[in-house]
This record gives sequence, C-alpha cells and structure tokens, in this order.
Amino acid sequence: MEVLDLRYPTVRMGLAGSDPRHLAPNYSCAVPVLRTDSGLEGRALVFTIGDGTQIQAAAIEALRRFVVGRGLADFIAQPGLFAQALAEHHQLRWLALGVYRMAVGGVVNALWDLWAKSEGVPMWRLLAGLTPAQIVSCIDFHHLRDVLDEAELTEMLRARAGQREENLERLTRTGVRVYSTAGWSGRPLDEVRRVCSGLYAKGTRAFKAKVGRGQQYGRARALDEDRRMLDAIRDSTGPDALLLTDANQNLGDWRTAAAYMSELAAYKPLFIEEAIAYNDVLGYAKLRQALAPLGIGVAGGEQAPDAVTFKQLLAGGGLTHCQIDGARVGGVNELLSIVAMAAKCGVPVCPHSGGIGLGQLVGPMAVFDQAWFGSEGRWLEYLEFLQAGVFVHPLEVHDGHWMLPSAPGWGLEMEPGFVERYRYPDGPECADSDEADGMAAAQPGAPPYVRYWLPER
Amino acid sequence: MEVLDLRYPTVRMGLAGSDPRHLAPNYSCAVPVLRTDSGLEGRALVFTIGDGTQIQAAAIEALRRFVVGRGLADFIAQPGLFAQALAEHHQLRWLALGVYRMAVGGVVNALWDLWAKSEGVPMWRLLAGLTPAQIVSCIDFHHLRDVLDEAELTEMLRARAGQREENLERLTRTGVRVYSTAGWSGRPLDEVRRVCSGLYAKGTRAFKAKVGRGQQYGRARALDEDRRMLDAIRDSTGPDALLLTDANQNLGDWRTAAAYMSELAAYKPLFIEEAIAYNDVLGYAKLRQALAPLGIGVAGGEQAPDAVTFKQLLAGGGLTHCQIDGARVGGVNELLSIVAMAAKCGVPVCPHSGGIGLGQLVGPMAVFDQAWFGSEGRWLEYLEFLQAGVFVHPLEVHDGHWMLPSAPGWGLEMEPGFVERYRYPDGPECADSDEADGMAAAQPGAPPYVRYWLPER
Repeated sequence: MEVLDLRYPTVRMGLAGSDPRHLAPNYSCAVPVLRTDSGLEGRALVFTIGDGTQIQAAAIEALRRFVVGRGLADFIAQPGLFAQALAEHHQLRWLALGVYRMAVGGVVNALWDLWAKSEGVPMWRLLAGLTPAQIVSCIDFHHLRDVLDEAELTEMLRARAGQREENLERLTRTGVRVYSTAGWSGRPLDEVRRVCSGLYAKGTRAFKAKVGRGQQYGRARALDEDRRMLDAIRDSTGPDALLLTDANQNLGDWRTAAAYMSELAAYKPLFIEEAIAYNDVLGYAKLRQALAPLGIGVAGGEQAPDAVTFKQLLAGGGLTHCQIDGARVGGVNELLSIVAMAAKCGVPVCPHSGGIGLGQLVGPMAVFDQAWFGSEGRWLEYLEFLQAGVFVHPLEVHDGHWMLPSAPGWGLEMEPGFVERYRYPDGPECADSDEADGMAAAQPGAPPYVRYWLPER
Repeated sequence: MEVLDLRYPTVRMGLAGSDPRHLAPNYSCAVPVLRTDSGLEGRALVFTIGDGTQIQAAAIEALRRFVVGRGLADFIAQPGLFAQALAEHHQLRWLALGVYRMAVGGVVNALWDLWAKSEGVPMWRLLAGLTPAQIVSCIDFHHLRDVLDEAELTEMLRARAGQREENLERLTRTGVRVYSTAGWSGRPLDEVRRVCSGLYAKGTRAFKAKVGRGQQYGRARALDEDRRMLDAIRDSTGPDALLLTDANQNLGDWRTAAAYMSELAAYKPLFIEEAIAYNDVLGYAKLRQALAPLGIGVAGGEQAPDAVTFKQLLAGGGLTHCQIDGARVGGVNELLSIVAMAAKCGVPVCPHSGGIGLGQLVGPMAVFDQAWFGSEGRWLEYLEFLQAGVFVHPLEVHDGHWMLPSAPGWGLEMEPGFVERYRYPDGPECADSDEADGMAAAQPGAPPYVRYWLPER
C-alpha cells in the first residue's frame, strides 16, 4: 500500500471550482494504491480541496494494517464484512464521520478496483452485474431498517431484474445524461459564456451556477451577482437549456434560504443544491415544502457524511434530487445502501462530481442506479477540466452524455507526469496553501475572519 | 505549539470503558499545548479511544499556522471570529466533522485555557462570568437561526441575569450533582458491585449501566446480561439509587430500540442513552415518543458532531437529556450555542464525561449551564478512575457532587510521569492496538468482522 497526496493549483485557473463557502479551492486528493503479488494495482481517491490532504492521507495510512498481507479473494467473498470491519472498528470508529469515514471509503474502493481488475471489467460492469443477494450482503443495515431492510431490498431488486439488461443495453449505447457546472463564484463571466456555449454546441442541456454569496456581500449585491451569472449562462446557451443552482450551504437556515430563492424563481432552476447545512434534515424537509409552490427542487448530499444522514434526507422528504458523492462516505458498500434508499423513496440520484476524479468514481454508481431503477429525472454532474493530462482514461462526453468506459476498474490511473508535478510537498507545481488563502482573503466582501488565514505580519 | 499523543491501556483495567460498540477501548488523547512568550502554557485535550489518535494529532498539527506567532489579546477580543476562521476555513472545512471539527475544538479550547490562565481564574469562573454580549459574539448563528438567534439569546440571558449570581454561589458551595458510570460491558459483576457500593456509601445516587449487546449476543442473551448488571447495581446500592442505561448506538433503529427497552422498563431507568445512531434525529424523535408511556427518557449527544445536529435533536423533540461532550465539537464556542439551544428547548444538559480528562472539560460547561439556567434535572457523568496519578488537579467528588476547582484554566495539567510512560509510540507502558484488538475479538459473541482486526496469519 502506498498513499499519494496530490495538490493541483486550481486557483490558477481563474477560480475554477470556487463557491460561496470554498472561496479558493485547490483540487486535491489522497490516493490509496494497493499492489498485489500477482501484479495487479488497485486504487481509489479521496477528494479534498487543498490544505488538510495530509490529514486524509494519515487516516488512510492508519488502515494499512487491515489490508497489507491479506488475500483479495477474502474481500471478494464478503466485501460487506470488510467494509464493516473498518467503519465499525471498535477504536477507530470514535473518530466518526468526515476524515475517518472517507479514509474507509478510499480503502474499500481501492479493493473494489482490485476486484474489477482481477476480472478485467470496468467498474460499472462489475457493479451492474452484482446479484440481489450480493448487493444485500454488501450493506450494513443496522441503523437503516426503519426505512429499508434486507427483505424489502431483495424484493425491490427481484422485481426489476427484467428491466436491468434492457436499461444497461441502452446506457452502453447512449451513455448517461450530464449537466455542466460552469458557473463558479467569481469566475469571469466571459469565461463562463465561452465554456457554456461550447458545451451547449456539443449537446449539453443543463448548466449549474453557484449562487448566494449573501453572507459575504449582503443580500442585494449577491442577488445581483447571481442574476448576472444566470443571465450569462442563459444568453450563451439556448432556450431549451435547464438552469441549476448551488449555494454550498451559504443561505443560512431554511427560512432565509427559501426567501432568497424566491427572488431567483423567475429563472426556473431545476433545484437549489446545498442551500443550508448538509446535515440539517429537518431544515431540508421544510425548505422543500417552502419551495415546492415555486417549482424549485431541493438537492443535497455531496457532504452528507453517511447513510444515516441520507436515510433521513430521503425518508424525511427533504430531497427532490439525491446527490451522492463517490468519496465522501464509506465507499461502494455504503453508496449501495444510499442508492437503494433513494429508489425506495422515489428520489432520482444525481451524483456530485465537482472535483478531481469524482466523475470516475460516481459514473459507475450512476450506471448501477440507472440499470436497476431507470434514468428518469437523473443527471450526472460533469466538469470539463482536469481530465485530459491528468487521467490515462479521461471521461468522454458526447452529445451531452457520459460514455461508459472500457478500461478495467474505476479508470483512476494517472499520467505519471501529473503525479510527479503535483505531489505534495515536493512536486514542483504543487498547490500552495498560502497562495490560496491570500486569494480567498482578497475576494471582495470576504468575511472578517479570513484575516486569520493570512500569515502573521 | 506541541501536540502530544497519549495512550493509556485501559483494557488492562478489567475492561473499564467498554461498551457494546467499543469492545476494548484504550483511553487516549491528542493534547495541544500552546506556550506564550510570557511563560503561560495553555492546553486542551481531544479524547480518543486508542488507535487513530495519530490522525487526530495530525489534524491538530495542521492548525499550527493559524496559531503560532499570534497574540493572545487578539483571541480574547473576538474568540468567535477565531473559532469561525478555523471551522469555516475555505479548504479545511471540506474535511467536515469528526476528526477535523475535534481538532478545531482542541485548539480553540487551548486558547480558552490561555485566556483563563492569563486572568488566573478557573475555567468555570471565566465561562460563568461572560456577559450576554460576549456569549452571543462567541457563536456562529449562520445555520441555527431557525431555532435560536442573537436577539432571542440576548433576551434569554438578560432575563436570567438576576439568578446567575445566586446559582453560582450555590454551585460553589454544594458542587454539581454527579452520576457514576460503573457498569461497563463485560466488567466482572463483583467489580461493579464493589465500585457502586463504595460510591453509594460516599453519596452518589445515580448509576449507569451499558446495555444491549444484542447485535453480538442475540436479544435474549443480551437482555439476560443487562438484567444481571442492573440487578448487581441495584443490590449494591440503595432503594433511592437511580438507574441509567446506555447502548452506545447498538440497538439498531428506533423500533428495535423501543422494543428492547420495553423489556427493561421494570428497572425504571431515567433514560436510555445513544440507543440508535447518534445523528438519527428523526429516529430520536420517534424513540422518545415510543418510550414516553414507559417513563423512560432518551439521552444522546456524546458523538453528535456539531451544533446543527444538536439543533435538530433538541428542537425536533428527540432528547429528554442533552449530553454535550467537551471534545467532540468545535470547542467552547460551539458548546455555548448547544447549551443555549438546550435551554431554549427546555432540555436539561447532562454532560458526557466517560473518558480521560473529559470531566475537566465539561465540568466548567455544566457550571455555565447551571449558573444561567438552574440545576433542575441535571446530572454530570463521573468516572472514578484515571484522575489521581494522571492529572495534577484530579476531580474532587464529595457527597455525590463534583466540587468546583480553584486551579486556573481547565485544570488539564498532567503528571510528568504519566506523559512519559504513556506517550505514543515510545512510552514504555503505552497502549497497544494489537493487544486491544485481540481482546475485542476474543469477547464471547464478537461479530464476525472482528477477524479483520487480528494480524494476518
């Protein structure tokens, strides 16, 4: 096992990736790499946004003793048991969600990569080919049975077995429909127009904008900024283009969020994503009710840290769109439970993919979801940058759809030159935290506490 | 700034600290130590239970650049701004709750320690002496205003200003009422009887038992074990002794938890603590409703990772007793918001203190709470071990009450010999993860996944 800490200076790309809360991110990742005696290499990725990747790498390192020296066949026989052994380790579980759960996800996903590679199949094919019994045995139902239990999931899957082949055939032919996140906070509007018109010309029909820098700017100025961004997207695309909005938790509580979004209702956004705290399940339910008359949906999940949170967001009526992330929870196993609960609750899965390598991780989960449960209402997020030159197998999007890949596993192999240049701390082009903090603090209307991010005079 | 990683082999004390989920813990901590040019030393502590303390220490290390070289006066002038700068750092916040939030809490609390020491007062006095304006300015209300906002908290505090002095005078005289956690899972019943009868003789009147190893043992055997434990406590104390129960999240979902506790209703426990997942706010609300007719309360919070979770547990009706922990959330600042929301919702605060040094950290918060809001329904958890020989200022309990200390700050100074013996990895008596994993796996009825915790043959 080897763990890489890679930091790409996204801030030098005109604030690509920035939003109202993450003012100047540097797309980064901690990468567990597992090598077997038989010459296979499995890998996964935990996405981070710059500083702190060293903590994530240390957490993955702490799991070394449960992995090195063991047989892959043992994992393949009972992947659920292994995932539970890590997530529920009697001492490590005290560290709870966030860093620790993401480390579990990284290691679990690297083992899934080895499994797929040992069979020479891409991850979407391995996942979509799991039997109902395998899927059920992957999941820890301990805290979930009030919403979904083993028997009900088995029944749900058996009832849909007939559709699965047909759906999969369609998906391999047409791909998975995507939307683009091009409207980053503070990104020059000319750049937004250029990217959106290019993607529209090539078939993309939905575009997301970051909104709601009200906490920093004040409400009126923030609304003005948001309208200019949404206008720029609308003007550079066509009348059939759908608009999506995302506030990255910056709209306060559900009441202030509902009031704010009512001001943007004329744009008819499909949804507002992460309006409030990602784990405020009671607030999500109230927000959804408040926005329903305006026709605005409520999306969330990219930072929801575990299946218990998703269980409540879904069964509590807080979501119209369920945004799983490929590197936030405990890996494939926990994601299978979340996708299953979303299907049970009738909420379409629209994976989060705004980060380096996240498309590779969530694409296969989208295929799993859409093979079993159909494609209605589903959109997969897609970023146009950090693919070519980074990954050996970059995502391919044609006519607004992500095309299913043929490379075995997740397809997370990186160009050697990329790793060399951006490896922390010695890579010559590695991102720098002080630079990013300086750019964050220099933004107009930055909150007063940013001064603590700057080096002491 | 220095960060210590200390690991005490609690498992060698007859499984003190063990519960249905944390089978063989070794009480441990990551300790940030801050030293000023003027010779003050501030410290706090992030409690862990063995393996993974190195991750916690790495997270605290990552905050060094925001602390070293800065002036204490700047923190004292605006502690809320500093706490928010760390919790909401535009890159680090991606790491979210758990490890990262606890690291923020450790550093913030070490600065509060410096503040108290710079004034030469114990922490309870500093906290209980804060003005309403200071308290309000400590809190980040961004996600909390649907339950409590600045104006309402100010009004709540002003209305109680008269009681505060009177309450504080009473608390300094009589201390804070405690309960004992003596009924650890797997602890020999003779030892439980010995500890409980000793504490009862010295005035303690409430005793907590770990219950619910059903997931491991099966329901019937677990209930039998629980009844023997509760009988042992009842028999070794008196008829006026109150029983409390704690399942450490092991009772499944709210339905299975309610059914299980109905079998123990004859013992009239004051509450069942952590019956289900610590962040299942919808489940907590349903469990509380289900158990109300039986007269069993619902407690939780020791692993609730942030104020947003507490907001929902409190306002959502899920708690009869609010168990704050001194090292789980973002330090004093976030705890002030939680205590205030508990008061608003009429839920008594009964701090969690089952760990090394946690009593030192939550005692002052209990004084803050009871000075402003009275002592009705409040109990402070107390462990009889790991005080003398560990801390220079061990907790003092007389007649079932924790006596307010006079040492400045938190009183977390440790005996030098303790640090030397238990410092990881080189301390000669430092806890060993393999030993603990072996003891966990050897427990009767241990779940099948424990085999991954054992070294590969």
